[in-house]
Amino acid sequence: MPKTEKYAVGVDLGGTNIKVGIVSHEGRIIKKTSIPTFAEKGPDKVISQMKKGIKEVLSHDKLKIQGIGIGSPGIVSTKKGIVENPPNLPGWGRVNLGKIIEKEFDITAIVENDANAAAIGEMIFGAGKNIDSFVMVTLGTGVGGGIIHKRKLLRGEIGSAGEIGHLSIDYNGPKCNCGSFGCVESYVGNNYLVKRIQNELKEHNDSKIIELINDDPDLLTPLIIQKAMVEGDEYAESIVKDLGRYLGYALASTANVIDIGTFIIGGGVAGFGHTLFNSVNETIKSRVLKSLVKRIRVIPAKLKNEAGIKGASALVFYKS
Amino acid sequence: MPKTEKYAVGVDLGGTNIKVGIVSHEGRIIKKTSIPTFAEKGPDKVISQMKKGIKEVLSHDKLKIQGIGIGSPGIVSTKKGIVENPPNLPGWGRVNLGKIIEKEFDITAIVENDANAAAIGEMIFGAGKNIDSFVMVTLGTGVGGGIIHKRKLLRGEIGSAGEIGHLSIDYNGPKCNCGSFGCVESYVGNNYLVKRIQNELKEHNDSKIIELINDDPDLLTPLIIQKAMVEGDEYAESIVKDLGRYLGYALASTANVIDIGTFIIGGGVAGFGHTLFNSVNETIKSRVLKSLVKRIRVIPAKLKNEAGIKGASALVFYKS
Repeated sequence: MPKTEKYAVGVDLGGTNIKVGIVSHEGRIIKKTSIPTFAEKGPDKVISQMKKGIKEVLSHDKLKIQGIGIGSPGIVSTKKGIVENPPNLPGWGRVNLGKIIEKEFDITAIVENDANAAAIGEMIFGAGKNIDSFVMVTLGTGVGGGIIHKRKLLRGEIGSAGEIGHLSIDYNGPKCNCGSFGCVESYVGNNYLVKRIQNELKEHNDSKIIELINDDPDLLTPLIIQKAMVEGDEYAESIVKDLGRYLGYALASTANVIDIGTFIIGGGVAGFGHTLFNSVNETIKSRVLKSLVKRIRVIPAKLKNEAGIKGASALVFYKS
Repeated sequence: MPKTEKYAVGVDLGGTNIKVGIVSHEGRIIKKTSIPTFAEKGPDKVISQMKKGIKEVLSHDKLKIQGIGIGSPGIVSTKKGIVENPPNLPGWGRVNLGKIIEKEFDITAIVENDANAAAIGEMIFGAGKNIDSFVMVTLGTGVGGGIIHKRKLLRGEIGSAGEIGHLSIDYNGPKCNCGSFGCVESYVGNNYLVKRIQNELKEHNDSKIIELINDDPDLLTPLIIQKAMVEGDEYAESIVKDLGRYLGYALASTANVIDIGTFIIGGGVAGFGHTLFNSVNETIKSRVLKSLVKRIRVIPAKLKNEAGIKGASALVFYKS
């Protein structure tokens, strides 16, 4: 291991598990662990679990650690390290997580919203390494996002910029969990997607999807759609193309508003591969202002399974 | 006149007229002039007209001028002062307007896209004087915009950020001039608005609008709608409320994407007053993410008729 390597701890605070790792400045994971969050037991328990996880990876060997980066759900005031009302973590209100962790380990701690951390992770270690400005889009249950503008995270007024999922593509569209209508998340978020296909399946009784779920709609997941598409199922392919179109409508508007032409797409659904990426790319190009067309690029995220840990650790390398 | 005042020249390059003024650092216009653009005669003629206008205001007296700010249509590379394919100015291609004007007057010249200049004008002299982050929205033939993020203009990759008018609020909506569908401009831009009302008027034959236009649809303008509304016409009021709703849908999405809660609205249609502003405000609040609701503010622009000259001169004070 060369002496010039630098290290940071990355903490991915999820609703079910806390993932912790030591990451080199080149994005190599040296050690990692995962520990249950026990979210329902409230912030004190969650924080003690987090400390436990950090201690575990630090006990490994005597690497000089530059800092601890934490990716947290909810709105984060980065200067102070305060986490506010994180969804899926009941009872938190406002918690000064940064200060607590700094005090415990006597080392700089940087807290950031998890979607923003993912964007910084792609910028430091991933597909955005050589790209000045891009929008990171994470497809999953929700549609998250983070905006990198000239190598800097665009935070907005309170750090919640990048909520691409709640750009409405139809003001008369389906109701979204957020209370609005036609948010792109209500077209392409996993649950909405699965629900829509469950309703449509009866009109596609020759689709391979039905075989793959043993005729049990409750078994339908994005992965099943992916499998069916890979096996050549036309209906599954049309679903993925539709998904790309919906996402493309939202990203074309995003490009027009912030004049950023590169979109890095990650998260589970990104496994739909070329079919998805081509559909997104074509849709954006057909909708965006003419002066932007030639700069449009839609590329897959590079950080996969360890995106959370790596993104969190990248917060340390981004600042230093 | 106190000796501590500083001065800049502001140039508003329009398709019909070039407006030029000397503006104090407090936003007071010392002298101004307007000269035909002669756009159809090409860039050389337009630039010679611009020089003529600048010379005219500078001949006034011996004020020490800090620089010349130019608000231009089209995409502007500010570092180099290059204007690219400005709409309504045929034959331009790429013109290094900044360098030409600097050379002629031996004084710093700063060129910026006119919508961005308007945003900077409101930040330096207008409604955004004490606001860290806001989106400037200009309603007119088109719907223009500029984004101020933490007292800095957000330019995007090539300086075209802020094209709020081309955020689509319905992917299946009416075709927009830009080639896309459902852009908010295609609902609230003057021409689209007038066209829609011309089509609807026959269903509202008791509306005061018909009287005000002497039954001649060609005489319909936003000002007529405003007049009818002020006279208590219900249909005219419903038009303005609709307009506010459409704009509100787009601005709610904008707020979610960039986490900026203040919108400053200017341009002709902004004359619709409280009815418009209330409708925009209520719509955004009903659609935006819950965490943003309490920061939403929709306020009128302060710079009115001289917005172009003042915004252009503000480019000088913004930099220095």
